[in-house]
Amino acid sequence: MNNANKISAISFTDFKSVARALTVVENDLPGAADLLKNLRFDKEAPIIGITGPPGAGKSTLVNALIHQLTERGKNVAVLAIDPTSPFNFGSLLGDRIRMTSHFNSPNVFIRSLATRGSLGGLSAKTIEMSDVLRAAGFDYIFVETVGVGQSEIEIAGLADLTLVVLVPESGDEIQNIKSGLMEIADAFIINKADRDGADFFVNNLKKLAGEKHKSIAVIKTVASQNTGIEEVINLIEKPNGQKTERRALLLTEKAYSLIRQRRMANVDKQNLHRQIAELVDKKDFNLYSFVDKW
Amino acid sequence: MNNANKISAISFTDFKSVARALTVVENDLPGAADLLKNLRFDKEAPIIGITGPPGAGKSTLVNALIHQLTERGKNVAVLAIDPTSPFNFGSLLGDRIRMTSHFNSPNVFIRSLATRGSLGGLSAKTIEMSDVLRAAGFDYIFVETVGVGQSEIEIAGLADLTLVVLVPESGDEIQNIKSGLMEIADAFIINKADRDGADFFVNNLKKLAGEKHKSIAVIKTVASQNTGIEEVINLIEKPNGQKTERRALLLTEKAYSLIRQRRMANVDKQNLHRQIAELVDKKDFNLYSFVDKW
Repeated sequence: MNNANKISAISFTDFKSVARALTVVENDLPGAADLLKNLRFDKEAPIIGITGPPGAGKSTLVNALIHQLTERGKNVAVLAIDPTSPFNFGSLLGDRIRMTSHFNSPNVFIRSLATRGSLGGLSAKTIEMSDVLRAAGFDYIFVETVGVGQSEIEIAGLADLTLVVLVPESGDEIQNIKSGLMEIADAFIINKADRDGADFFVNNLKKLAGEKHKSIAVIKTVASQNTGIEEVINLIEKPNGQKTERRALLLTEKAYSLIRQRRMANVDKQNLHRQIAELVDKKDFNLYSFVDKW
Repeated sequence: MNNANKISAISFTDFKSVARALTVVENDLPGAADLLKNLRFDKEAPIIGITGPPGAGKSTLVNALIHQLTERGKNVAVLAIDPTSPFNFGSLLGDRIRMTSHFNSPNVFIRSLATRGSLGGLSAKTIEMSDVLRAAGFDYIFVETVGVGQSEIEIAGLADLTLVVLVPESGDEIQNIKSGLMEIADAFIINKADRDGADFFVNNLKKLAGEKHKSIAVIKTVASQNTGIEEVINLIEKPNGQKTERRALLLTEKAYSLIRQRRMANVDKQNLHRQIAELVDKKDFNLYSFVDKW
């Protein structure tokens, strides 16, 4: 069986084939490059990025979305990114476990990916693995990550549509929202909207979004009670396909990140550090001459 | 005059030579690579990073530090980084203007650098230009940047000592401090400490710093009145030289950033985008095959 045959066998109807392909790509096993180059995207399934601070209810929201989409006969894949940057405290395992109600569904494929958070760049693995899921023919691909450090910016570079999940209390940090999230969000989902201050926050967000002349949707949900989920689904189902220009921009960011990852693949920081540790105390050590040899 | 001669002429006693060298490096003019490779560091002048949110009083603090250091006969260079990331709103020009009281001093060299904020990596230009200043023989090099996005993480990778400037009101965002700034700060400067809540915030910070078993100094200042500046100077003057291990780690990060910048120098995003825009609608476009050609 040659590679091309193997590849054509990656299908949402055979989870094992998907899991295998993801493992090949994640670990850069032999055949990974060919696998990627032979991916075919017959369906234009959207990649939907979901981000937000810890505790906003991202996983519960994804859970509720999955529930309604599978009821409609859709096939859904979830790539759950665990950023393991030094700025991320605590495990996200709790979140993951909440998603397990769908683990045995034949229509829902869930995979976790720990990235060391290639700060500020798109992680090549995230790009590659979400493309494998697209090629497998799922109807929707959710990429979920907790919004710490730069991960929410990363997700916006990857996703066709980015949902930023907040809670009413997030209003206290409106400054952060102003200066960052507003740039990346296609929609704000105000979850746990039965809590105090939800309407006030929603109105403020709508005003801010308006100021920037962007059409950012603001939707209230109580994901744990399936409230407002319909409206989110209407948003992600919007029939008007993605504009060529936006697709080109996304692909440019992806291409740049992939090129960088490939060019830097043989530069190992530990190795660099070993070499530098030996040289650092020498009087004539010059960083620029050192770098030239790499 | 060959390059080596030109280079030996970069000196804090001749501001024109410093400005010229910085311009060569900033714009990668002919001779830049040789210039960098021939830098000699006879003095171990510390690079002091100063970061913090807009309005914390960074420039006023730098101003006060410069004032006291020049009174002691020291020569000081300031590299003021303007991150022009999409997440940075408004001009920082106001800040800069406040520093101009020293513009005519023969002991103070000030240069601004607009970086497009190589998000999450050290900007190669910042590394190179601060090294030019070190080689010029200044006693202290301040690298100042507003703490938006990732710039405060960048500065920590560059500086021998990182001061994070906050105001008492920053206590409200203690969560952010916990999960990020604590990792990069060698000292917290609580400026405008004559305001309400300063002591409460200082005590909280000291407790948090203690939890992490790190020796992070917490210093109260009112920079506009020169209060507390002495203590900051004692900190940056500490005679105990930097440990070899920390220097090696800093140099490793710098080397990595420089290698990456050099390897990616010929990858132009605009060019990438032009190519992709032409291909994106073709049925058989494959990102991974495209990337292989670069």
